[in-house]
Amino acid sequence: MIQRIAILGTGLLGTSVGLGLRASGFGGSLVGWNRGAAGAEQALSMGAIDAVAADPIEAARGAQVTLLAVPIYPTLDLMEQLAGVLGPDQLLTDVGSTKGQITEAAGRLFNVPGRAAFLPGHPMAGKERGGAELGDAGLFRGAVWLFTDVAKWERSSAASALVRDWRELVVSMGSRTIDIDPSRHDEMVAWVSHLPQFTATALSALLEEAVGDAPELKDVGGRALREMTRLGASPFSMWRDIAATNTAAVEKALLALEQRLQYIRENLRGPELREEFEQANKFRSGS
Amino acid sequence: MIQRIAILGTGLLGTSVGLGLRASGFGGSLVGWNRGAAGAEQALSMGAIDAVAADPIEAARGAQVTLLAVPIYPTLDLMEQLAGVLGPDQLLTDVGSTKGQITEAAGRLFNVPGRAAFLPGHPMAGKERGGAELGDAGLFRGAVWLFTDVAKWERSSAASALVRDWRELVVSMGSRTIDIDPSRHDEMVAWVSHLPQFTATALSALLEEAVGDAPELKDVGGRALREMTRLGASPFSMWRDIAATNTAAVEKALLALEQRLQYIRENLRGPELREEFEQANKFRSGS
Repeated sequence: MIQRIAILGTGLLGTSVGLGLRASGFGGSLVGWNRGAAGAEQALSMGAIDAVAADPIEAARGAQVTLLAVPIYPTLDLMEQLAGVLGPDQLLTDVGSTKGQITEAAGRLFNVPGRAAFLPGHPMAGKERGGAELGDAGLFRGAVWLFTDVAKWERSSAASALVRDWRELVVSMGSRTIDIDPSRHDEMVAWVSHLPQFTATALSALLEEAVGDAPELKDVGGRALREMTRLGASPFSMWRDIAATNTAAVEKALLALEQRLQYIRENLRGPELREEFEQANKFRSGS
Repeated sequence: MIQRIAILGTGLLGTSVGLGLRASGFGGSLVGWNRGAAGAEQALSMGAIDAVAADPIEAARGAQVTLLAVPIYPTLDLMEQLAGVLGPDQLLTDVGSTKGQITEAAGRLFNVPGRAAFLPGHPMAGKERGGAELGDAGLFRGAVWLFTDVAKWERSSAASALVRDWRELVVSMGSRTIDIDPSRHDEMVAWVSHLPQFTATALSALLEEAVGDAPELKDVGGRALREMTRLGASPFSMWRDIAATNTAAVEKALLALEQRLQYIRENLRGPELREEFEQANKFRSGS
């Protein structure tokens, strides 16, 4: 049974995990660390953590499970720092949006004899804005929580019970877990997550240029425009690392969308437009 | 005071107008006509209209105000048919999504001595699926209802009281009216309405191709994916006429988005990506 969890990074996701664990009845202790002290204090005041640690290493040292809930590059940095510090009866896991580099680092730095275990994870949940103050116990309800590199656990280790328990905690927060190969993960999220984000960013940036000086036009667009640009509020600080660690797959998806838009543009008066609508209708009718 | 309104086309919008008028206390009679009889019967059974007319001309002949709530080309057809039939004490208005051709036809066929008045209108409200059964008394609450060619009314006519009354009914359904020049209207909706629609269509059609055989991936995308593709369900039957009557403005907007996506694609690892996110954040922060 997991008695103590360290949450490194008490932004939107880390804070929501703390709140979600508490709401689902987790009775162990939750220690949090955040790069900016205000975020940790905020998470503490909301009850997402019981105590604020001054140092991420110390926080992880005392925990059976450590959750890395920071952007990709800080996650990789913390992995380097923690690899030599933790032992084989400890588990690390993360919430990073790309899994190729993290899974590679997990195999190199952890998951070997004498080292702690690392289970790469990715909850498909979030908001268009970050920060502890938006933390939400229900954020993971109905979401899919992806894990990569899971097969390794079958031939492992002191920490395999912790892996099982952590997966149960994830389910207790209302998520459905899916195991997926890391390269398939990155290719897939390029389509269903990263492409929609960069599309919303491009559309929002373009509209700011085209109609930004006439704010009443945003009202004119109504719900459709609000939905299509909601992700335009997403912070660069998070997406920079995603763009940099999944570049090839995102490039491929963006190029495909550019070509699709061009095809529609060149056929606005042709029968091809009907086929595009029918194909799009098909995507939605299945969901 | 308006005593009798004819609603020609009892799809989503026509039915919602009937329901909205009733909900806001309109006490006159509402006669409906629909090309397919089932849609008219549905609207009747929901209380959106009091009676079904067998013929659009007859329905309009007996009404003080006739609302054309059909796609653009059928609207233009009905305008031709009704021009010689109605008199100067009658008002026509419409809900068409492009206003250039309709406003031009209104000036040619109506709004001249001896003819009925025509007030081009465009409620910025809808759903991604059509049909009387989705009719909703609250559809126009909080929406903007655009009118074009309004200046003409200042130098007009027996019908000017009807125009004023119709605008009041629109406000009573919860909409805010904005008057706008028709060419400015078409340019503007290309950005805030048509571009988001064609973007969602392109994205949905592309994703159907890329991941359509793995329906569990739609769940993985979560709320963000659902929102970015909701409009993918929109019917071609409505958008065909929009694409054909606002082609140049939509082409311009689509080309601009293609270029924006290409710029993002070519700068996924560069400082330019930050500027795109900041520009997009700005669009959202104003709304």
